[in-house]
Order: sequence, then C-alpha cells, then structure tokens
Amino acid sequence: MNLGKEMYQWAKDLFPINRSITGDGVRETLKYIKNVLPELSIHQIPSGEKCFDWTVPQEWNVKEAYLEDSQGKKIVDFSENNLHLVGYSIAVDQEMSFSELNEKLHYLESLPKAIPYITSYYSRNWGFCLTYDQYKTLLKDETYHVRIDASLEKGSLTYGEILIKGQSKKEIFLSTYVCHPSMANNELSGPVVAMALTNFIKSLKNRKYSYRIIFIPETIGSICYLSRNLDSMKENIIAGFNLTTIGDDRTYSFVPSRDDSSIADRAARHVLKYNDIEVLYYSFLQRASDERQYCFPGVDLPVVTICRSKYLEYPEYHTSLDNLDFISPAGLEGGFDKVKQTIELIEKNAKYKIMTLCEPQLGKRGLYPTISTKESHQQVESMMNFIAYADGTLDLIAIADIIKVDARELYGIIDTLIGENLLEIVE
Amino acid sequence: MNLGKEMYQWAKDLFPINRSITGDGVRETLKYIKNVLPELSIHQIPSGEKCFDWTVPQEWNVKEAYLEDSQGKKIVDFSENNLHLVGYSIAVDQEMSFSELNEKLHYLESLPKAIPYITSYYSRNWGFCLTYDQYKTLLKDETYHVRIDASLEKGSLTYGEILIKGQSKKEIFLSTYVCHPSMANNELSGPVVAMALTNFIKSLKNRKYSYRIIFIPETIGSICYLSRNLDSMKENIIAGFNLTTIGDDRTYSFVPSRDDSSIADRAARHVLKYNDIEVLYYSFLQRASDERQYCFPGVDLPVVTICRSKYLEYPEYHTSLDNLDFISPAGLEGGFDKVKQTIELIEKNAKYKIMTLCEPQLGKRGLYPTISTKESHQQVESMMNFIAYADGTLDLIAIADIIKVDARELYGIIDTLIGENLLEIVE
Amino acid sequence: MNLGKEMYQWAKDLFPINRSITGDGVRETLKYIKNVLPELSIHQIPSGEKCFDWTVPQEWNVKEAYLEDSQGKKIVDFSENNLHLVGYSIAVDQEMSFSELNEKLHYLESLPKAIPYITSYYSRNWGFCLTYDQYKTLLKDETYHVRIDASLEKGSLTYGEILIKGQSKKEIFLSTYVCHPSMANNELSGPVVAMALTNFIKSLKNRKYSYRIIFIPETIGSICYLSRNLDSMKENIIAGFNLTTIGDDRTYSFVPSRDDSSIADRAARHVLKYNDIEVLYYSFLQRASDERQYCFPGVDLPVVTICRSKYLEYPEYHTSLDNLDFISPAGLEGGFDKVKQTIELIEKNAKYKIMTLCEPQLGKRGLYPTISTKESHQQVESMMNFIAYADGTLDLIAIADIIKVDARELYGIIDTLIGENLLEIVE
Repeated sequence: MNLGKEMYQWAKDLFPINRSITGDGVRETLKYIKNVLPELSIHQIPSGEKCFDWTVPQEWNVKEAYLEDSQGKKIVDFSENNLHLVGYSIAVDQEMSFSELNEKLHYLESLPKAIPYITSYYSRNWGFCLTYDQYKTLLKDETYHVRIDASLEKGSLTYGEILIKGQSKKEIFLSTYVCHPSMANNELSGPVVAMALTNFIKSLKNRKYSYRIIFIPETIGSICYLSRNLDSMKENIIAGFNLTTIGDDRTYSFVPSRDDSSIADRAARHVLKYNDIEVLYYSFLQRASDERQYCFPGVDLPVVTICRSKYLEYPEYHTSLDNLDFISPAGLEGGFDKVKQTIELIEKNAKYKIMTLCEPQLGKRGLYPTISTKESHQQVESMMNFIAYADGTLDLIAIADIIKVDARELYGIIDTLIGENLLEIVE
Repeated sequence: MNLGKEMYQWAKDLFPINRSITGDGVRETLKYIKNVLPELSIHQIPSGEKCFDWTVPQEWNVKEAYLEDSQGKKIVDFSENNLHLVGYSIAVDQEMSFSELNEKLHYLESLPKAIPYITSYYSRNWGFCLTYDQYKTLLKDETYHVRIDASLEKGSLTYGEILIKGQSKKEIFLSTYVCHPSMANNELSGPVVAMALTNFIKSLKNRKYSYRIIFIPETIGSICYLSRNLDSMKENIIAGFNLTTIGDDRTYSFVPSRDDSSIADRAARHVLKYNDIEVLYYSFLQRASDERQYCFPGVDLPVVTICRSKYLEYPEYHTSLDNLDFISPAGLEGGFDKVKQTIELIEKNAKYKIMTLCEPQLGKRGLYPTISTKESHQQVESMMNFIAYADGTLDLIAIADIIKVDARELYGIIDTLIGENLLEIVE
Repeated sequence: MNLGKEMYQWAKDLFPINRSITGDGVRETLKYIKNVLPELSIHQIPSGEKCFDWTVPQEWNVKEAYLEDSQGKKIVDFSENNLHLVGYSIAVDQEMSFSELNEKLHYLESLPKAIPYITSYYSRNWGFCLTYDQYKTLLKDETYHVRIDASLEKGSLTYGEILIKGQSKKEIFLSTYVCHPSMANNELSGPVVAMALTNFIKSLKNRKYSYRIIFIPETIGSICYLSRNLDSMKENIIAGFNLTTIGDDRTYSFVPSRDDSSIADRAARHVLKYNDIEVLYYSFLQRASDERQYCFPGVDLPVVTICRSKYLEYPEYHTSLDNLDFISPAGLEGGFDKVKQTIELIEKNAKYKIMTLCEPQLGKRGLYPTISTKESHQQVESMMNFIAYADGTLDLIAIADIIKVDARELYGIIDTLIGENLLEIVE
C-alpha cells in the first residue's frame, strides 16, 4: 500500500470517533495512533489544573443525544453524526415548544446541506446543529423532546507525545490536534500526516536534529503543553510545524511565524517556491490555530504552517462537508511531501565555506568539461555559483535563494565538494 | 460658534495687517493672538544681532506707497492691497519715465488678475507688484510719480512663544509664521490653526508631553529662535510640526522630516493613511519652509509638515489670489483635526506588553463571545492581533501599522486590557 | 588623431597576433603596449609554479597548422586565421579518414560563416575550428592530412603591470586580459581602453588614489597575480574594474561585484544612470570573467565590470565574427568615457559637512538671487539640497542619489562652498 493510501486509511478509521478537547474520544484516538507508533507516550492533566491564564476544564462525554417530535420520531440524532451536538453541551431531558427550541439550533442558510460545527467549551450551554434542509422541516406548532445524556465532570485532558533523538539536542517540533469530531481536513489530515512524518523521521539515517511530535487538543492543549515545557522548548526548538488542513487537493498554503525569519520560515518558503505548485501565502494575521500560542510574545517559538486549503479559507471548513470526500490519498501525500522536503532541507542546511582562494581547478579533479566552448560555460553554472557564495557566512538556503536554484540540486554538489576536500562546514 | 468658523474669523481679523519679517505689522498680529491666548509671551531681538550665519535686519515700516500718473491719478496704491509694494522697499519719491519704472514692476502674465508677492529683504531695492491687467493700462510715453514713504532703521525682530507644561519635560513643538502681508493659506491658516491647537492642548487632561508653540517670521525667525534655544530643543523635542498652508479644501499634503523615521513622521503618516482622505505625499526635497532650518544638519529636529494644498504647489501661492476666499472654516477645521489626531496618537503611543504567556482566557473576563462559531473567529480579531504583537518592543504605531487598523480602534482595547491587568507599558 | 581612433588603431595593430594564456603572442602584445606606455613592467612566472589551487601550465607556441586534402590542397589554415586551431593543440602530423578527423572538428551550424573559438588548456587534445560552410565541403570518403607544428614545453606565463602613485596608498585597480587570439571586442577592446585610461590617469593632477593596471591572461593570470599580491591588494584596493568587451556600439552593460555595495558599484551605477544611455544591468550570477577570481570568497575585492555588449550575451562572442568590424572608435570612446567618469567620481567622492548651523546666508556671499520670487525658489535647488544632506555621514554619491542629480552638477557647487569656507571634508 502506498503512503497516501495508508494515511487515508488511518483517517477513515479515526473519522467516526467523537473527539473533543477532553473525553474518551481523544483517548480512543491516541490509542489508535499508539498502535501504529508504539513510541507514543500518553499524558493526562487533571481537570482544574492551572496552565498559565487557563484552567483545564471538566471532562465531557456523551452517551446519546437527539431531538424527537411528539410522535417519537428522531429528527436529529448524535448517533448519526456527532456534529449534530454542540460541543460541551450539558445534559438536558425536556419537552419544549419550537420557539424555545429555536434559540438552541444552529444551521447555515448558505450551505443548506451542511451541518455546522459549534462548541461552547467555557460557558455552560447546549444546542443542536443541523442542515438548513432539516431545519426547514420543523413545525412551528410542534412540541419537541430534547434529550442529551452527557456528563461534564472532573477528569483529564489527554495528549500524546513522541521524542525521537538525533545527534543534537536541538529539536524540530511537529504539533497537530486531536479535538474535533468527524471532520477530515480540519482534523484528521493533521494527525495522519504527523504519523507518516514520524515514520519518515525514524528512517532518517544520521539525523542531525531531535524531533518532538505532539498530538494535543487545540488551544487549551498547546497552552497546557507549553506551560509544562516552555523552558526546554525555547532552548531547543529551532523549527516547528503546525500540521492541520493538509489533506485536500485544491492548493498549498503557508502561514509564517510571527517574525517570519526563522529557519522554518526560510526552508518552507524555499521548498514551496521550487516545487512548481500553486501556493497561497498568508500573513501571520491570518493565523487561527496553535501558532497563536507558539508564536505568542514571550513564547516566540519558530512555528509555521505548511498546509493545503487553509483553515477558515474554504467553504466546507467547520461543517460536515469537511468529510472523507474532501481529502484524498494524493492530497495527503502532497502535504506530507512538502513538510518532508522542508525537514530534509533543514537537516542539510549549514554555513558552507569553500576552502580555496580563487576558484578551485575543477578540471584536474574531473569536475569540469575538458573542452571549453561557448556552451560549456553554462554547464557547471550551479556548482560555480554555489562556490562563489560559499563564504562561510551564508547558509545553504540563503545561497540557493541568491543563485535561484532548487536547494535539492545542490545536495549532490555539496557532497562532491566535501568529498574532494574543497568545502567545509562552518559551525 | 464652531471651531472652523472661529478660526476663520481670526484669519479675517488678521488679514488686512501689513506683516513682514519685522515691523509694526508683526507686533499688531502678536497682540491680537495674545488677546485670544494670554499666555503668549512676546520677544524682541534687536537689529544687528548675530544669529548663526545671519544678522537680524533693520526694521521695516511703511506709511504710504503709490504710483501716480502725471494727472495725479493713483494707478497702484499700497493702501488698497499691501502686496502692491515689494517687501523691504526703500523710500523713494521721484518722477520717472515708463522705461525707468518698468524695471521695477512685477506682474504675472499667466495670472492676469493676480498681484504677485515679492520681497527683497537682504538687498536694498524697491518695486511695485501689480496685476497684468493693470500693467497693460500703463502708457509708454507717460511720466510717473513714485512715492514710497518707508523706513528701514534699527529696531527689532519680534516673535511670540507659548510653553504648556505636561508630565514630562519632553516636548512636542509647533511652529508657524507671521511675516506675510495679506495672504490667507500661505500665512494666516498657520497661526489660526496653531491658536486652536493651543486651546486643544490646554484642554488635554494628564497630558504626557510639554508643548512649545512659536509664532515667528519665516527663515530669519526660525534661525534666530534656534540660535537662542538649540540645546534645550535638541534635548527635549520628540516631535514637531510646521504649520502652514493648512486652511483650504482641495487636498491634504505631507512633507516628512529629513530622516523620515521620527515619531512625528510615523504618527502623521498613520493618521493620514487611516482617515479616508486624499493625501499628496511629498519628499523632503520638496521642503521650502522652516523645516529647512529645523531639519538642517546639526539641528536635526524631527519636524514634519501636515498641510492642505502645499506651499509652492498651488497656482494662487504667493499671489493676491491666496485670499480669504481660498480658505474656509471646513478647510481649517480639517487641517486642525489631522494635527490634533497626530498629537493624540503621540500622547497614546507607548511600547505595550501583554502580561500573560500564551493568549489570555478572554471568555472568563467577558471579553470573548461565549459561542465559538465560524463567524465569531472574526469578531475579536483586532484585539487578538494587538495582543499578538504587544511584545514590549513594538510601539502602538508600529503594531497598528502591522495589523493594518486605525490606531484609534485600539485606544479602547488598550484601556480595557490595562483595566483587566493584562497589559502593561514598557518604559 | 582623436582618442577613439587612436584606440582603434592600437586594436588593429594587435589584432593579427596569436595570443593564448602563454607563449610568444602574449609577449609580443605586451611589447607593443610597453612601446606606448614605457612604465609597463613585464613579469614571467615559470611553468610548474603553484598558484593557489592551480599550476602554471607549459608554454604553447605554434609554427604552422593546417588540414590538407589528398591533392595537397589546404582546406583550413592557421596562417589565415589563428582561430582555426583549438588553443593548446598538441603537435600532430598524420593522414586520417574523414570519420576519424570529424571528431576533432568544431563549427557552428547556427552561424555558418563563423569560426568558433575553442581551447583545451588543461587536457591534452587537438582540433580544428572552421565555418559550417567550410565543413560542408569536406568529403566523407576523402583522406586528410593533419599537420600541427606546435610545441608545449616548459616556459612561462607572462603579464604586464603599471603602478601610478597618488597621494594615498589606497588604490584603484584596472585589470584586462591579453590571452585571446584574433578577436576584437572580447579581447582587444579591454587592453586598448586600459591603455587610454592609463594616459588619462597620468594626466590627473593631484590624484587622490594610486592606480594599478594589469594586463594578464584570463583566469590563470588573475589567479597567479592574486596569489602573489593578495595581502597588499586586500589592504589597498578600494575599487576595481575588469575591462572587457568595451568597444562596440550596441549598448552599455554592468556587472556588479559580489556584494554590490562597494564604492566601485555605487559610483559606476550613478554614472551609468545619469548619462542618458541604454544600460543592461546584470547580476553577479552572470559574471564569467576575472571577477570570478577577484570577488571569490576570501579574496573579496570590490571589482565591477562596466562594458558595452557583455561577454556571453552577443551572438558574435567567441567567434571570428567578433572582429575589427564589430568594434568602432566611437564604441571604444564611449566605453572609455564611462570608466573615466566613474574614476573621476571616486576621486571627488568624500563625506562632506556643511559648517553652519541652519542654512548659510547665501545672499551676502552673492550665491543667491537677490530678488525672491516664485521662480527663484527653484534656481538654487541643487545647492540647497546638497547642503541639506551634507551632514558629514553621507558621501557625495549618496547625496547625489538622494537628491536625484548627476554628481557632476555638484562638483562646482562643492568647490564654491569650500572656497567660501562653508563646507569641509570629514575624514
């Protein structure tokens, strides 16, 4: 099975689970991931624990939830689609008129076949989400039975973490979230690409950097994780990637870190530029995921987002239309590939210095065409341009940007020159 | 009476006075201003005093001046319009042929109904200015009587000054000139807007900065003032505004300081950008007023010009067509308002720092919508963007520019966040 | 005889000589130059000597070389055009079939009347170059006689050098090459413009800088020269010019130094911008001459190229069509003039500081129109703008760029202001 299909199968398996920022759905999701990646460690933070300005909320679990008409016919049923229930709804068991019920219903007139995704984590409330087509069938003079069998009680916030060591203590950081119910691009694409990247990283021989991969609930999860690990993260992380909405086929997108100058920003921009793909470049002002916390003043981690159709920017976002048809094996594999290339570039990146004064005599080493013609001037252009800028102050990404070539074209040249003792790495 | 009408009335009252760089007209003008603003102190510098490379000239006063034909008919009369006499004309009482007289006449063929404004401060000379229509009625074979009863003798250069103290010794500086005869935009708009701004500054509660407002003759006045006050000005002035040509309705204009990076430049550019008005941005190369002295190498004060139709750039400039019809109450009020907003922004400007690590939990403070929907993501955008950049190194103007909002939208947000103990000012 | 014609005559005299990177042709060329410029010193570096990563090659000389058919008819003859023989061809005297010979023949189908220029300096080989029209007359079943009477033996690499002292030990450096056989723009234009510039430099009264002019074989020559002089060159050279392809009439071109911020870059860009000529601005990535060595990491000399149709960029380049018809007296003189202007600008360049606080009173010194009118505001604009930026931190080139005037317009203003004791040079 190829990689895209494997990722897609993982997403399919995980799709039905009712995830939220806490609860059994998160634990079930992490258990599935640990089955694929046994090195995953699972952590619990108890409800009520303070994390910076926030408090870990009570844990939410749902047994059943539906709306019934007076004939006992189920109009809207959580068991059919977990998006029907507003996240963190409290328990209710009550008859009510249409007009009372109406205030608790959410739908989208502009997308009449979509169930919207709504939550109320930090304010006690309840509600149902339904398609506008469903909504139109409700009767103004009917009495409805609302049944939500849900619990909100002391429990824990759960997250998963993998640490893969490299030669250096310096880390590359991958973060993805496991807190949305049945949605595909804005949920499962992130974890499954993170899983595939974990396998890729494990396969990297002589990896320079260590890698930290975390599977967390969005916002409260990143805040909790940061509150426990901030010092070591600030000391060690040189590049980070928030993995989200990375599985559809429409486009590629990029959100830089706040200061947009880290090696994560530079490497990602280089990779996206030299892959002959359409890329929508967003500003940090368009952030809306965990980069809000990672790039917060005082946190200041170099975390960027390489994704496909970006969260907030596609019509199906945060609705039931963001389903398994919205993502694809090829879409996932394309997203995986761009992050993988960026990691490879960061691994290869260094300040290189040519060891001769004046150009080396390449001919005697068999690195130069032996007949000098008008045409041969072009042939070794990339090598000579790389050498001309390998002054020990510019790194590979900077040189590739200046000489306008895909950094991948230089990997072999670098190996050759180092092999000939013509090039050294400047620490 | 609204502010625009009040300023216009002051301009109307001051219009007929025959001002020059010295003389009774300047004193009469300053006396009028002191009547409105009793805190104005009036200073005299005696003729002959050295000010840097310059010397205070003799004082010039005019009793009468006219051209008569051989029938005793007055062709051109200073008592009708003080622009008719070249500024600093020496006394003359003489009959002369047309051809002798012709060399002393100034007119504009391109503006046949305009009397041009001409001076000869530093070279003893005389002359008359008249419309081209008037000029055409002169007879080539006529003998004319030239009468200029003017004195040029030891006296003084006069200027006015107001100092309004604030919490800090650091100053915001306003400079305007009182040395042109009957012209409205390129003379009186400056003093009357300076007068209204003085009243506004006095009304500012808890003003952070001190304010220095001066009413001087152009060029020689700013040079004299600088020669007496340079050290304290260089130490204290953080922003300055040259007030001139700020009363018509056509457009707004901006001239930056020489290095174009001071807080005066940054605040003024922000205000002009976010007011939905037409603005012509000039380079410092287009300067032609007292910013020549304030921004001179070694003086280096951060003085900018926010004006309406800029000096030199409108056809009526330096002619009798720059009269009370050229300015208006609304034009003056628009100019006043942009300088006022710029002062308010400088007063509010500071480096702000958010006091939490990671985003604060706004919901528990009632600062965030309680239901999280697709739409609510947009609602608190300005607040969250401000917070995301409030890192203690960027000031308010920088943040507003980065997050692309009018700084005024952030004033309330800042007050709220400080009230909630979430934001502090970094000194 | 005007300068352009004189340069053209030198080129004509030098054209027939068979130059290469070593050999009698180089010595003959240098002897001719020394006849014009007796201060030329001629240096020899023996074959086998190490220069950085390179070794001085054996010396190559040719007595005769031709291709004969079986009737003894010469098809291709070195004595008719020295481009016919591949540079550094080894001795051959042999009969061979067309198919054996064919592998040693070079021609250009796209330019059927051009003999291409080919060399094989560092790999023992031989070959003939001919027009495609000639090539087509060869017979597939013919046997040909190849005769190359050439020697490749221990000798030396020869170069010429002139040092003209100025007030300072700091140097302006001119480098040109004498290693191509009969080609005009990409060979002789460089040496003859260097010769004319040497005469110009000698005529410069009170020259601030010393000048070093070298005539070398390309690549191996600059590497050898650098290996012997690097320390003093790095210490003294403030600006350098590689003189090549500077004699045709088509356009002007510019190649910056690697970091594109030296005074050579800044002065050359200013001169080219303000001469109302067409200029093609290339990037350092388009370099292909001795700037490869001069700007190499660790060498880092500020060497730029001001030329006409740039090497590599015109169809006749490196063919027999780059002949005396391709260059012209006017083309050479235009190229000479731009380098001369650039040298003059560097000589005049300094950080100037105005000595008054506030504007000087120009009127009392007769430097300002005595009547101030609307029009006179424009007249002294350049002087006042120069003064406004003469703050002792900006040099002449920077000020001229900022105030958008040709620096040449400021030369007289500078002299006047220094004469009036209003301006000083800041060391």
